[in-house]
Amino acid sequence: MELKGNLISVREDARVLDATLRDGGLVNDFFFTDEFVRSLYAANTAAGVDYMEFGYKASKALFDREKFGKWKFCDDEDIRAIVGENEDGPKISVMADVGRCDYQQDIHPAAESPIDMVRVATYIDTIPEAIAMIEDAAKKGYEVTCNIMAISNCQESDLKIALNMLAQSPISTMYIVDSFGSLYPEEIRRLVDVYDGIMGPAGIKLGIHAHNNQQCAFANTIEALSVGVSYLDATAMGMGRGAGNCSLENLLGFLKNPRYKLDPMLRFIEEHMLPLKESGLKWGYDLHYMLTGLTDQHPRTAIAAIKNGDTHYSDYYQMLLD
Amino acid sequence: MELKGNLISVREDARVLDATLRDGGLVNDFFFTDEFVRSLYAANTAAGVDYMEFGYKASKALFDREKFGKWKFCDDEDIRAIVGENEDGPKISVMADVGRCDYQQDIHPAAESPIDMVRVATYIDTIPEAIAMIEDAAKKGYEVTCNIMAISNCQESDLKIALNMLAQSPISTMYIVDSFGSLYPEEIRRLVDVYDGIMGPAGIKLGIHAHNNQQCAFANTIEALSVGVSYLDATAMGMGRGAGNCSLENLLGFLKNPRYKLDPMLRFIEEHMLPLKESGLKWGYDLHYMLTGLTDQHPRTAIAAIKNGDTHYSDYYQMLLD
Repeated sequence: MELKGNLISVREDARVLDATLRDGGLVNDFFFTDEFVRSLYAANTAAGVDYMEFGYKASKALFDREKFGKWKFCDDEDIRAIVGENEDGPKISVMADVGRCDYQQDIHPAAESPIDMVRVATYIDTIPEAIAMIEDAAKKGYEVTCNIMAISNCQESDLKIALNMLAQSPISTMYIVDSFGSLYPEEIRRLVDVYDGIMGPAGIKLGIHAHNNQQCAFANTIEALSVGVSYLDATAMGMGRGAGNCSLENLLGFLKNPRYKLDPMLRFIEEHMLPLKESGLKWGYDLHYMLTGLTDQHPRTAIAAIKNGDTHYSDYYQMLLD
Repeated sequence: MELKGNLISVREDARVLDATLRDGGLVNDFFFTDEFVRSLYAANTAAGVDYMEFGYKASKALFDREKFGKWKFCDDEDIRAIVGENEDGPKISVMADVGRCDYQQDIHPAAESPIDMVRVATYIDTIPEAIAMIEDAAKKGYEVTCNIMAISNCQESDLKIALNMLAQSPISTMYIVDSFGSLYPEEIRRLVDVYDGIMGPAGIKLGIHAHNNQQCAFANTIEALSVGVSYLDATAMGMGRGAGNCSLENLLGFLKNPRYKLDPMLRFIEEHMLPLKESGLKWGYDLHYMLTGLTDQHPRTAIAAIKNGDTHYSDYYQMLLD
């Protein structure tokens, strides 16, 4: 695919989305302190981050509110308590999982909500329900995106069918999601070709959400950008499930648009992320995650192994190959 | 640049070089135990690694033998004590730094040495001396490569002059070296074009030596491979100065040639690398290194900051920009 832009100038279409609370919430069950969330919001505002994702819109029928922090549910009033009228801050997004979100009741009209964007996350086998959710959110006045997860486990022909269905839906951005951190830059560029071939004619932009299992999250993100992807997900210190995500500090340092400032994020990290690490929360590249990425598998067994302090990488690898 | 090969089949020209002792030696002043070195040699042999670099050929006039482990000097007899006649093992390389190696006396004829390959490392301003060393090593019967360090700080026009000079020398492989971990995949592909345009016609292969400051070491290595680079440097767990290198376990997992086996390296890491980490040796991605990579600077101030436990990333960044 042809390069869009270069490494010196600004790509005006680029948008940075901070997913620290949402993907990072998978590490600590969304139990972030209000002070942490307020400071992250202030840091994102000062850093020029375009979107801040507060968490999930998870079903309260399916999930016990006592067992998770409030950012698994992202009630409008909880977001409002942080951002007020959100006059100068980033736009606010939430993620809504197909089958795990009572979207009809829990997602209110955009005019009444501090939320600007709803990101509908789906597997390949629930596209019709995803489209129902997308249409609901669009009708309520939100900017809507779609993330098809675990595409590295899909057939390309199925993926194309799904993309063609979504191209008819009211999404503004379609995300390429490397759920298992199994994709290499060469594959990301090829996927951009596939996605853009279907979404481009429909006027739908592309986004990228990468995982760091094989230490490619940042590289995959900037490579996607280089061939035309606009929406770039990242998290502070790469905080996210398992191997984590593209590091927001890497990305802010890389981007050339003067509206992005690295310094506020560095301050946030030294003041708020280092204490999280010191508290014992675990995320980031590790051999277990490298092995699930390499074998294109969900990281859940790796997360369990690391939690148990298991370092028998060879045995673990053989188990993955069984 | 055109892609060479694909992600499914074998690139017959690929060669893996384990630089754990050499680049990792910069972390612990080359004080590896004999058991560690023997086990690494056995692991590399079982893993099908093509070259194992034992360390430097450093001048004993310049460096105190008491202050460094033996792999800073790589005497033939020390290597021989590990590898014997090296019947089934990887080829053996050493690095010789321009201005820090008494090569005329310390590098003996290849026929009398266990060493197979001499890698001459130079900055852009000492190319004539590098060529004298290359010619000396070639005359003694070695396979010879050249690594121009810190090219991200060179003018491209100077680099081309240097490459044209080296294209006339008896090197078999010319290395692209990202000393400061400042280069992105897009730049690596462009450099491959530049290097190959000069080295290709001379029948000289290319190599890549990456650093992980911006978490691109593995991605840069496989991207270099994808556009035609053959010699791939990596280290166990990425052990190397500062942010370290391309992880050997990532690379062995990635390569499709059945002669490469990941399992022996996983076993080596669990048995020998984890204890090194636990002993307090520090290497690998960290915000300080990200910042030196981003600003294209030597990591020495970052190494010092990390040693001192400094986590004032914002102040450190401002210092780098002064």
